[in-house]
Amino acid sequence: MSANTFGTIFQLTSFGESHGAAIGGVIDGCPAGLLIDLDLIRNDLARRKPGQSFISSERREDEEFEILSGYKDNKTLGSPLAFIIRNKDSQSSDYDSLKKAYRPSHADFTYQEKYGIRDYRGGGRSSARETAVRVFAGSVAKQLLSGIQIKIFAFVSQIGAISSGLAYEDIDINRIESNVVRCPDERIAREMISLLEKLKAAGDTTGGVITCVIQNVPVGLGEPVYSKLQADLASACMGINAAHGFEYGSGFAGAAMKGSEHNDPFISDAEGKIRTTSNNSGGIQGGISNGMDIYFRVAFKPVSTIKMEQSTIDSSGNTVSINPGGRHDPCVVPRAVPIVEAMAALVIADHYLRNKTSKI
Amino acid sequence: MSANTFGTIFQLTSFGESHGAAIGGVIDGCPAGLLIDLDLIRNDLARRKPGQSFISSERREDEEFEILSGYKDNKTLGSPLAFIIRNKDSQSSDYDSLKKAYRPSHADFTYQEKYGIRDYRGGGRSSARETAVRVFAGSVAKQLLSGIQIKIFAFVSQIGAISSGLAYEDIDINRIESNVVRCPDERIAREMISLLEKLKAAGDTTGGVITCVIQNVPVGLGEPVYSKLQADLASACMGINAAHGFEYGSGFAGAAMKGSEHNDPFISDAEGKIRTTSNNSGGIQGGISNGMDIYFRVAFKPVSTIKMEQSTIDSSGNTVSINPGGRHDPCVVPRAVPIVEAMAALVIADHYLRNKTSKI
Amino acid sequence: MSANTFGTIFQLTSFGESHGAAIGGVIDGCPAGLLIDLDLIRNDLARRKPGQSFISSERREDEEFEILSGYKDNKTLGSPLAFIIRNKDSQSSDYDSLKKAYRPSHADFTYQEKYGIRDYRGGGRSSARETAVRVFAGSVAKQLLSGIQIKIFAFVSQIGAISSGLAYEDIDINRIESNVVRCPDERIAREMISLLEKLKAAGDTTGGVITCVIQNVPVGLGEPVYSKLQADLASACMGINAAHGFEYGSGFAGAAMKGSEHNDPFISDAEGKIRTTSNNSGGIQGGISNGMDIYFRVAFKPVSTIKMEQSTIDSSGNTVSINPGGRHDPCVVPRAVPIVEAMAALVIADHYLRNKTSKI
Amino acid sequence: MSANTFGTIFQLTSFGESHGAAIGGVIDGCPAGLLIDLDLIRNDLARRKPGQSFISSERREDEEFEILSGYKDNKTLGSPLAFIIRNKDSQSSDYDSLKKAYRPSHADFTYQEKYGIRDYRGGGRSSARETAVRVFAGSVAKQLLSGIQIKIFAFVSQIGAISSGLAYEDIDINRIESNVVRCPDERIAREMISLLEKLKAAGDTTGGVITCVIQNVPVGLGEPVYSKLQADLASACMGINAAHGFEYGSGFAGAAMKGSEHNDPFISDAEGKIRTTSNNSGGIQGGISNGMDIYFRVAFKPVSTIKMEQSTIDSSGNTVSINPGGRHDPCVVPRAVPIVEAMAALVIADHYLRNKTSKI
Repeated sequence: MSANTFGTIFQLTSFGESHGAAIGGVIDGCPAGLLIDLDLIRNDLARRKPGQSFISSERREDEEFEILSGYKDNKTLGSPLAFIIRNKDSQSSDYDSLKKAYRPSHADFTYQEKYGIRDYRGGGRSSARETAVRVFAGSVAKQLLSGIQIKIFAFVSQIGAISSGLAYEDIDINRIESNVVRCPDERIAREMISLLEKLKAAGDTTGGVITCVIQNVPVGLGEPVYSKLQADLASACMGINAAHGFEYGSGFAGAAMKGSEHNDPFISDAEGKIRTTSNNSGGIQGGISNGMDIYFRVAFKPVSTIKMEQSTIDSSGNTVSINPGGRHDPCVVPRAVPIVEAMAALVIADHYLRNKTSKI
Repeated sequence: MSANTFGTIFQLTSFGESHGAAIGGVIDGCPAGLLIDLDLIRNDLARRKPGQSFISSERREDEEFEILSGYKDNKTLGSPLAFIIRNKDSQSSDYDSLKKAYRPSHADFTYQEKYGIRDYRGGGRSSARETAVRVFAGSVAKQLLSGIQIKIFAFVSQIGAISSGLAYEDIDINRIESNVVRCPDERIAREMISLLEKLKAAGDTTGGVITCVIQNVPVGLGEPVYSKLQADLASACMGINAAHGFEYGSGFAGAAMKGSEHNDPFISDAEGKIRTTSNNSGGIQGGISNGMDIYFRVAFKPVSTIKMEQSTIDSSGNTVSINPGGRHDPCVVPRAVPIVEAMAALVIADHYLRNKTSKI
Repeated sequence: MSANTFGTIFQLTSFGESHGAAIGGVIDGCPAGLLIDLDLIRNDLARRKPGQSFISSERREDEEFEILSGYKDNKTLGSPLAFIIRNKDSQSSDYDSLKKAYRPSHADFTYQEKYGIRDYRGGGRSSARETAVRVFAGSVAKQLLSGIQIKIFAFVSQIGAISSGLAYEDIDINRIESNVVRCPDERIAREMISLLEKLKAAGDTTGGVITCVIQNVPVGLGEPVYSKLQADLASACMGINAAHGFEYGSGFAGAAMKGSEHNDPFISDAEGKIRTTSNNSGGIQGGISNGMDIYFRVAFKPVSTIKMEQSTIDSSGNTVSINPGGRHDPCVVPRAVPIVEAMAALVIADHYLRNKTSKI
Repeated sequence: MSANTFGTIFQLTSFGESHGAAIGGVIDGCPAGLLIDLDLIRNDLARRKPGQSFISSERREDEEFEILSGYKDNKTLGSPLAFIIRNKDSQSSDYDSLKKAYRPSHADFTYQEKYGIRDYRGGGRSSARETAVRVFAGSVAKQLLSGIQIKIFAFVSQIGAISSGLAYEDIDINRIESNVVRCPDERIAREMISLLEKLKAAGDTTGGVITCVIQNVPVGLGEPVYSKLQADLASACMGINAAHGFEYGSGFAGAAMKGSEHNDPFISDAEGKIRTTSNNSGGIQGGISNGMDIYFRVAFKPVSTIKMEQSTIDSSGNTVSINPGGRHDPCVVPRAVPIVEAMAALVIADHYLRNKTSKI
């Protein structure tokens, strides 16, 4: 049923509540013999973790993980690779006042109705803390993919109404990590930071957009009907907390184009490799990778936790006023960059393995 | 692996090439005892079928189906409901000239590379003809859902650059079928038709956007992490041929809002029912339906088949010039309306059944 | 949920009631480019079909199939291969008297309770007619496997209390098809036939045991924990109508042996290939094929339809007397031989494809 | 792909090697709000754990578990329930001499070939240590089932050639735990113990048979074709380490019966409940529970680790002599009793939840 499992061959099963003993995951289906560099995982976790800068939650988690199985002498064993990250700095008492109140635009109400019970501490299972599990697994998937030269990177292209007009081909990917908002367009980055400073001071929040690029994907990944590569990428990204939109290639703008403008002409390049001269298809045709860059954008809504007085309802149906004291981000988008990369890596790794049996 | 199967409990397995003997599907997991009105299925198929008007392909298929199993005395039996629709008006000879050429922005190249073989006639498995299978199954799902008062409707909100500014709450859904473009904003509809007439005369095509609304969804449908309702809707819609973007609730525009504007306050209404006063969440919070209207938008790229000379590559790597003679739509979007509804119905029906075991 | 789908990569979805319009199936996940000889499928279907001899049901079905998709120019396309077999000689009126009565040891009662509705004609979905679908798909799987030299054969080793003492290594597999009971031990076969003649005259039935052997399986097929090769073979065979027992290798007899007798010593043979000198493990160790012959036995209960007066209950709870007039086999076991082979082939084909991603 | 996941709605994902940091599992799909008594889990784990008596391995594990998620205030939360059991008394140095040798009838050779790498310590993933995970999850499933009055028990009916002739209806289930071999037939139990003492002294081992009974199952559990209840029980049990055979109801003996003897006549009992007067069907008809007792038997081969000199091959292809010093059971069957119960509970819990959507 896959409520907490992602993928078909390369599968991640995730568990854990925000303020429980631990979060963690089980990676099943990773081929045996894969060399894994734990520092690369640590680095990706550090990019997601709270407390990186003024714009992210003050919760301090070292994100130290323990691998419980499936890994020996730096290599995967072919058996399930289970890992846990203990919750250390969870301040559950922050949430005592919220035991009954349904925070606006959070999952408190829907969880209570669906399950008849909920872990109100830090949002429980609905907390974005779970995404650390995805980043760990995605980091393993990236290492599998880098063995076949596939490269994945993401960056922030919009925060609030401030948006970079640069195409991904025109950015310097080495500058993504050079500022706290992970926007490689430095001038725009400064504007974003300034906006976030104002929002933070006001106790308010905003959303943004992440652009992700996948390069050197072999031709043939993706399935023709219900597991089209774009469908699986959309599912992966829309499953990230706060994501409200997904588009790939020409995206929503493509709807306004003419076919004669939008079509990507095929040519045979100097080395005899077939490629297209434009890439409105975003590297995917008929649901299957065509060897060109895959690129897509994910929109995120503003963080729902604001430090302002809000009126709401509690589980007894009473109107109550809340002003949550928990530690949260004014904007989640910079920290979501490694999460988007991770979900992309999980999808591509899975389809890379699935494609091993496409033909005799 | 689900390459051709959609859903977890209410499952559709689809088969068929555009110009093969038949297309069809197997619905497994539909509860026994569901009364099915075949005329409602016929009506949905008629809304999707080619040859409805000047804007759609001239291919004439009566879309007559045969139910092979799982259905007796107007009711489902609980066993798999298999159905086929024979391909009658397939003019394969139209495609002889395309046996080797890779049509720009089609799946010819990717299929050939993935499988080492392909049915070039009418696009084979990559043809949108397969979507008739989804419409049939979606129509069954709608009938299951209408038994619990869930209502699903979609309409065209944009064609090319012409877009209706009306919110879905302000349209008259009874007018959706009143014009060939399925845009209930009559003035805009006339502009769209005029645009399509011009494009058709020029042999060109365009894209568009469909808005879909799901009403009366009970609270609690959707799973918290990897089968969030929005993730499954996104996967369902991005798997439709030519879809390039998906957004729900506030969507991409939400990225520019502040949390204090975006949050949907809870109130208890006159009947004591908990609802929100705004609906930027699009009826989904934490991946789970909150009882408000679910609404989303799907962007479609322009149809790739244009009646213009185009240069491309063939399977031997030679540069060739093509001008496809097949029968195609200048804009696929009006015919995609029942397909979007069908995919939404499949997702909601599946989650309705999944939710039967959420609590003791 | 897999109620009517078998396999994980090489997947068969089956549909159809005994006396509906047709039975059929969809094979998804078969690699593209597989040459399929339809005569081999016809031959396997003929081995299963009713009316072969005095011991099988008089129902006459030519078992003519139609392939609807996924196949062109004698090769698989990589898309779903759908096929149907129409029901031609179904005499539903035979079953009118059984509309309400629950036949002893049939599925009438359980279906009625589970679904609240049932197709009483010929047992509907519970009929062994569905196994023709498995034989078709199994025959495709066999052709995939024969490309890597894997050979599968089964034969009848017991009918009623008459059992052949010959080990499978001592039989001549070319004699399996030389008699109507498919027992290659000719003397025993004659005894079996004589028993069946007596049972048929008396309107009674009996059960039996089928032995199946799979040769040339590469080392490494099967998964370590919940998809052990023997578990999947057991599931496959216990899902055949009337199967009541499964054992592989030393089986139930192995329970009485000592470890020192039962262990299979490894040696390196003349060609340096590692093999074992005995094969109590039945070719599987730790759930994974070790390259030795895989062999197993499946026990079948007697056919439940007997031509004798029997007292039972009807759906209103009344005691009624029945004497079914339908056409049935005195012993199902000879016709089940190709079904057992088919299920074995489906399991091995699936694990062969699954194993493509076991290591880097 | 399910290599390490069992079930469709009530799903267990298992991880862990014998001598790694920990074993554990993730239970997904358990309804929220289930009260869980941890002492019942501890009790089942104690019945499986090594070191219970002279007949079991001397390895001492307290089997203390930690629940990491999905559980709060004694109740399930509806989110994944993850648990770990740390490996404490693993003496990996015992296995140093076996680093290269392929132990006869173990999984050393097949794992090495399948994965190109293996954790040789204690058999790694192939060790029966993993079954503690199943016992934990099965104990949770039992608690779900006991809420609807379903009762599951198993006992040892054969060890070596010593077998109890008592039918399960004639045993006193309260005596199952009264002796170390878990055979409620006391006289036979003494014979079994005496046999095991002799085998232990000789460094040899033997196998046995476990009988399992499931009572008060509602009518309607199981699916008609590929998830027949007996098929899923067979898969569950044949996936237990060392299992070589499975039969239910009349089993292999049923093959020799006549239909007129084997059929189970339906009657309406004093309360108007439909039942059968005999139960050769083992409580399952057409793959679906009919409300009668479900009973089945599982055969286990002798433990492969014997304390005797054995010749074998190592990973370099050399002939070597081994005499393993690890700690193992002379007979695994008494400790496998709670494992068989656990697997039965997982299957029935899953089908109980699956059946919630069988009809409108």
